[in-house]
Amino acid sequence: MDYDLPLDLIHAARERITGHVRHTPLAPAPPLADDLPRQLRLKLENMQVVGSFKPRGVFNNLLQLDAHTRARGVVAASGGNHGVALAYAANRLGIAATVYLPASASADRVARVGVWGAKIVQHGSAWDDAHAAAVRFAEQENLTYVHPFDAQATLAGQGTLGLELLDDLPDMDCVLIAIGGGGLIAGMAAAIKAVKPGVQIIGVEPVGAPSMLHSLEAGHLAPLSEVRTIADTLAPRSVSERTLTLTRRYVDDVVLVNDTAMIDGIRWLWLNVNQLVEPSGAAVIAAIRSGAVDVSRYACPVALICGGNASADTVMAVYEDAARAKSSLPAKV
Amino acid sequence: MDYDLPLDLIHAARERITGHVRHTPLAPAPPLADDLPRQLRLKLENMQVVGSFKPRGVFNNLLQLDAHTRARGVVAASGGNHGVALAYAANRLGIAATVYLPASASADRVARVGVWGAKIVQHGSAWDDAHAAAVRFAEQENLTYVHPFDAQATLAGQGTLGLELLDDLPDMDCVLIAIGGGGLIAGMAAAIKAVKPGVQIIGVEPVGAPSMLHSLEAGHLAPLSEVRTIADTLAPRSVSERTLTLTRRYVDDVVLVNDTAMIDGIRWLWLNVNQLVEPSGAAVIAAIRSGAVDVSRYACPVALICGGNASADTVMAVYEDAARAKSSLPAKV
Repeated sequence: MDYDLPLDLIHAARERITGHVRHTPLAPAPPLADDLPRQLRLKLENMQVVGSFKPRGVFNNLLQLDAHTRARGVVAASGGNHGVALAYAANRLGIAATVYLPASASADRVARVGVWGAKIVQHGSAWDDAHAAAVRFAEQENLTYVHPFDAQATLAGQGTLGLELLDDLPDMDCVLIAIGGGGLIAGMAAAIKAVKPGVQIIGVEPVGAPSMLHSLEAGHLAPLSEVRTIADTLAPRSVSERTLTLTRRYVDDVVLVNDTAMIDGIRWLWLNVNQLVEPSGAAVIAAIRSGAVDVSRYACPVALICGGNASADTVMAVYEDAARAKSSLPAKV
Repeated sequence: MDYDLPLDLIHAARERITGHVRHTPLAPAPPLADDLPRQLRLKLENMQVVGSFKPRGVFNNLLQLDAHTRARGVVAASGGNHGVALAYAANRLGIAATVYLPASASADRVARVGVWGAKIVQHGSAWDDAHAAAVRFAEQENLTYVHPFDAQATLAGQGTLGLELLDDLPDMDCVLIAIGGGGLIAGMAAAIKAVKPGVQIIGVEPVGAPSMLHSLEAGHLAPLSEVRTIADTLAPRSVSERTLTLTRRYVDDVVLVNDTAMIDGIRWLWLNVNQLVEPSGAAVIAAIRSGAVDVSRYACPVALICGGNASADTVMAVYEDAARAKSSLPAKV
């Protein structure tokens, strides 16, 4: 299969999801010190609803379901942002949702899914286990499974980010995009190359979870035997045939970053732009600051900050403890 | 004294500091759920350089110093954002800076001042002690003391935020502003009322540090005997004659919020807009959500998110621990 993702599907997705997702800011990235090229722009997709790009693809799936299919309900498997996005979108559209999470999912993630009323099932130790169980459940119950990256409607939704960037910055000549399952980069690259083929598209993966690079170099879909990175949302063991095919066709380069560089990226974004993000959101900054990518060669480069859902509970806890110490909150029980 | 703050001084300040500070985003505040009026806008001044409005006033001070005065150096006393702003601005302008901090200042604040090369002196247990020592030091050494709120140049700088808001949102009819020493609200109110007297200006103070309301009700400057709040940047024991006079003249109402409501506001901003802020930055959201202010009465209300410098070190530490567990960072020593 050629897994074609025609531009008109992405335009249709954009029209469909408008009003359900935010047009996020494209901001200059003036570093406080002089440590990054001043022409760099940040696409602050961490300011998207529920804190990542994922609702774009999810809404594009759900809004195409007929009333009958909606009434039955939807299912996803995700320890991360896709599950939160599905729970949120289903809540807003009045659809029943079930989200399968690996047992390893943090309490913070569980809470973020649960707050939107989705049913939560914890299953298996990794995403792949939760995914397999969720697909079986959806088949048994005749529910709609919404895949985080291996579905055309998902990719068309993520592709809307490419169109939004080109609208806001027609001179863009380079964009850096983090890779997990590859849905974001595949969708965006298909959109951008269809409109402006000269834009350089550079993928960024964790050195401990290089699922796309591994398959690109193998010449076929080649799952990793293990993944080791703090960037849990960039760490499926395998991309899909679909995202691999589109990445091979449209993406110019893929570079790797390590955990230390991503933590440095988180710190840089917090100190310079006051945006707190998760490791995946900082991966593109890590690629620039570690020297893996030289953006100074470009006149109009963009770093896509794809997600912000760091667990900030520890910050709240510090304030709650301080308030208790000042006797203005009840004692901890 | 009438402490007049003429509009032309604020216009001059704006011209002077352009290029040194950011024009921060004015964003719609679409809550994920339907729990706040949808017409509310957020002025995201937490995205200002060094994470708060303070550089506006500081740059307006430093840029008016002659070469001789600059060569001698500048001094401030601040356990919070003013000290960081002074250190940053002095660094960018090549001026030697000394910042007095109370001994209670957190390691995070000390680091944020020190990173810009300012000399740090820790003195006394509260801001008032550090302030007195810093003023003496400046006099002895013939250095320029930059007051965080009791100086016309500081207020004119903060007033530029009012002009920026009116430019971006000419229909604004209400703005909520947190009060610490009163410099921000005094400067902004002078600017806004001079241009558009009908805008309602509402101040927000911690119930545990109501220094402005206490003086307004007393009819004269009346320091508090103690302050008890987690919003350390809103907690001087006293405002100044200057800020009290301008607030009495230009501010329509002052309301109080407690620590619990501010923590709720932090959480709301994080979950709905993915902005992590300090308690002072969330005070205006606390005022709305607690019912102290009813913004649904206004067609075009603005909540000024004045500062974002929460201590996020705990978030970084969680990632560093996780990276160590995955053997990609050296062990903690």
